[in-house]
Amino acid sequence: MQAVDINCDMGERFGVWRLGGADDAALMSLISSANIAAGFHAGDPDLIASTVALAVENGVAIGAHPGFPDLKGFGRRRMEGLPEEFVNDIVYQVGAVAEFARRSGDALAHVKPHGALYMELARSEAMSALFIDYMRMARPDTPIFCMDVSHTCRIAREAGHPVVREFFADRDYGEDGAIVFTRRVGALDPAAIADKVLKACREGRVTAVTGREVDIVFESVCFHSDTPGSTEIARAIRERLDGAGIDIRPVSQN
Amino acid sequence: MQAVDINCDMGERFGVWRLGGADDAALMSLISSANIAAGFHAGDPDLIASTVALAVENGVAIGAHPGFPDLKGFGRRRMEGLPEEFVNDIVYQVGAVAEFARRSGDALAHVKPHGALYMELARSEAMSALFIDYMRMARPDTPIFCMDVSHTCRIAREAGHPVVREFFADRDYGEDGAIVFTRRVGALDPAAIADKVLKACREGRVTAVTGREVDIVFESVCFHSDTPGSTEIARAIRERLDGAGIDIRPVSQN
Amino acid sequence: MQAVDINCDMGERFGVWRLGGADDAALMSLISSANIAAGFHAGDPDLIASTVALAVENGVAIGAHPGFPDLKGFGRRRMEGLPEEFVNDIVYQVGAVAEFARRSGDALAHVKPHGALYMELARSEAMSALFIDYMRMARPDTPIFCMDVSHTCRIAREAGHPVVREFFADRDYGEDGAIVFTRRVGALDPAAIADKVLKACREGRVTAVTGREVDIVFESVCFHSDTPGSTEIARAIRERLDGAGIDIRPVSQN
Amino acid sequence: MQAVDINCDMGERFGVWRLGGADDAALMSLISSANIAAGFHAGDPDLIASTVALAVENGVAIGAHPGFPDLKGFGRRRMEGLPEEFVNDIVYQVGAVAEFARRSGDALAHVKPHGALYMELARSEAMSALFIDYMRMARPDTPIFCMDVSHTCRIAREAGHPVVREFFADRDYGEDGAIVFTRRVGALDPAAIADKVLKACREGRVTAVTGREVDIVFESVCFHSDTPGSTEIARAIRERLDGAGIDIRPVSQN
Repeated sequence: MQAVDINCDMGERFGVWRLGGADDAALMSLISSANIAAGFHAGDPDLIASTVALAVENGVAIGAHPGFPDLKGFGRRRMEGLPEEFVNDIVYQVGAVAEFARRSGDALAHVKPHGALYMELARSEAMSALFIDYMRMARPDTPIFCMDVSHTCRIAREAGHPVVREFFADRDYGEDGAIVFTRRVGALDPAAIADKVLKACREGRVTAVTGREVDIVFESVCFHSDTPGSTEIARAIRERLDGAGIDIRPVSQN
Repeated sequence: MQAVDINCDMGERFGVWRLGGADDAALMSLISSANIAAGFHAGDPDLIASTVALAVENGVAIGAHPGFPDLKGFGRRRMEGLPEEFVNDIVYQVGAVAEFARRSGDALAHVKPHGALYMELARSEAMSALFIDYMRMARPDTPIFCMDVSHTCRIAREAGHPVVREFFADRDYGEDGAIVFTRRVGALDPAAIADKVLKACREGRVTAVTGREVDIVFESVCFHSDTPGSTEIARAIRERLDGAGIDIRPVSQN
Repeated sequence: MQAVDINCDMGERFGVWRLGGADDAALMSLISSANIAAGFHAGDPDLIASTVALAVENGVAIGAHPGFPDLKGFGRRRMEGLPEEFVNDIVYQVGAVAEFARRSGDALAHVKPHGALYMELARSEAMSALFIDYMRMARPDTPIFCMDVSHTCRIAREAGHPVVREFFADRDYGEDGAIVFTRRVGALDPAAIADKVLKACREGRVTAVTGREVDIVFESVCFHSDTPGSTEIARAIRERLDGAGIDIRPVSQN
Repeated sequence: MQAVDINCDMGERFGVWRLGGADDAALMSLISSANIAAGFHAGDPDLIASTVALAVENGVAIGAHPGFPDLKGFGRRRMEGLPEEFVNDIVYQVGAVAEFARRSGDALAHVKPHGALYMELARSEAMSALFIDYMRMARPDTPIFCMDVSHTCRIAREAGHPVVREFFADRDYGEDGAIVFTRRVGALDPAAIADKVLKACREGRVTAVTGREVDIVFESVCFHSDTPGSTEIARAIRERLDGAGIDIRPVSQN
């Protein structure tokens, strides 16, 4: 791998409210793609405006990060509803973020759904199909960020729609190549994460929680701005990849 | 005048909620430009989707109708705040509606702010300037609907941005050519409104509440879907203009 | 039966928004118990204030009508979540309505959950138990309106908490004494509903959709303000019961 | 002064969202009166429930802390509207918090409006009069927390309604005895604040920003949970007053 993208969720505040200690200004200088919260699970028009400006300043690609209409729960709660309603929510939010990019003389670079919506799309054929229909019509050249093993990825590829597959730096993997939720003791170690990312880039493999080596395919490394120590993690990944001569840039520049 | 546009606010519901008895399906067959509520004062993603579909079916031009973030008061209450915040609200909403048009293979045809936001822009140089800056950057060819006598109109024209000036069929005029609020007794008479519109189109004049004739300039006739009897009013205007050989079409088709 | 209560949902608007043509002022003169929308599925502080005032003027008992936090869907959509969260929502809303009663020198007369929350409580032992725990602690003498066949009714009675069981005038019944959803052709006939209510009061029986007679037990007759023709239905019921010498009054006055 | 109350805003979060690092559990052990955010500027039913439980555990008096309907701006932005509408908002929120107290077998101990609403009441005779009318009717024995120099305080006292006047430990005072907004360099010093509070309790005086000594009258010391270092400030005040033999308890226990 000569180059890889690093993506991170950005602008995950709301008015005066915060979730954790994410330092968007510091993070923006370390990544190549920003997933900008679009207002339903986090984000508001003023914050989208300033986050887009920060991305433009740092030469970071602007992505829309639509979520479930669940501000209280930060879009992490699964919701019931008709697939077409949730896809209408996506259309609305993608358009909103894209317009701020357009005002900045830039174009929307990617779409990455958030939290429970991302997971629901991954497992729902019906919702993924409607989502990709919309993307085919409205933004045929704009990649969708998704997991390799997901209906979203499969249906997009069958439809000829560009995808960017993700490797989650701050999550653990099972033997099936899917993320597992492990109860952690203590904080994450930036150096260990950086090692894991470099190995994934070089060998296409990750050590599963069982100890076994698992093959993985991806074009973008993801970490979460609300992971404690996210700035240190980002810096460690960045330095390790720089040191290994792997260029960090959006997929569109490949 | 060979042709004129007729514009009307559309999709002014929210979930299961309604304001009055507006019959969007009937109205859409009678107008040439739809101002589609964008979600802050009325409208929701599902309703925007169905209203855009209705516009496409009827060959009606799709406009964004952003409002103040005031669902409870339907965007009719004046709000205090920084001009840049309200313009960020506009950017967000315009992008959202434009994306539904884009999904339908169509393009956003115009932007018309709603209610108290429309009036606030008319009287605020600072807010109009920021709004027009945004339109120049993001949508230089998309006309802004506004009143002839307004900062919005003046600043847009000075900046070389296209405007569509409106004649309000269901409102009264003062001698200065501005709308006046008159306390009415009884409902509006569709035939009288149709006469008034035809005269305005032919002679460029309207009879003010004082009885005096006043010059007016406009490219689009506006009426409100929540005016009681709006469908009958629309039908009467349409028939009168048809009978007079005046074509009804969006300004973009002139 | 010498006397019966008639209850109806009231104040089901939001800001400028309406659902249908419910005429609260007319209805309030025809009923004995008002279930006042508490702000989550409908209602806002100003509307609660004016609806409480209207109830006081008409000598109608003031009840709280809490719903799911679903303004868009009018609390008619089933929601997922922890029972304690929904019961906290109920506590919040009941307190809010009770405070307006208190300001009017009146006391809260009953609690009746709304729509999907009413149905969810009926079928959930866990949520009913938590709800009744709260009522035992905070309002041990305030009756809960519920269906005879429901966990809510059973658990309340076991705990010694007062209940008021309802007969739904504008709904059809199955052979098991539960409401059934039948697809209707045309509007409801006020006279037929009045007959059905009188028979239920006198004989304790209703004709099920299958034609068979079914026993029913109730202390309050319910109809819905958003049923088309609700004022005519209420008037017909009222007149029929008046004519039969059955007094209409809140259960607390028995 | 033998005893004084210490009050602090509590439960100023929303769902997963936070403002700063306020440690409610630690603070609750140091104060005697909690102003619990009531849901419009911060707070949600679950958080009110857990904050009320925390107050009960610590023997802290439960107060309602209603704010403007401005979640995004944390109720710190001045709003325009009719006095009766804002007082209806207060009624709604007070009732909601009072119901959680009632469920805990406790009673509402006080009402303290929040932020811009507190300031608006202080300067508006009309709004204060309506607010106090409501309190006279619904809660004639429940004190209102307010500033000595305010319409709220004056009108309440004229009406014979109990008030608790506040001394703001973490704010500066002008020569007129009103709070002034001074641009600070660096964080507040807990020891200096504790000295200032002790002097105010003993001598009824505070040193104004001009250096002059000013008389002040109060029954409660207020500090803000979102002031950086609020736990250390609370601990310092508590220890200083304990050391001086001044008892810390709600006004109701005097």
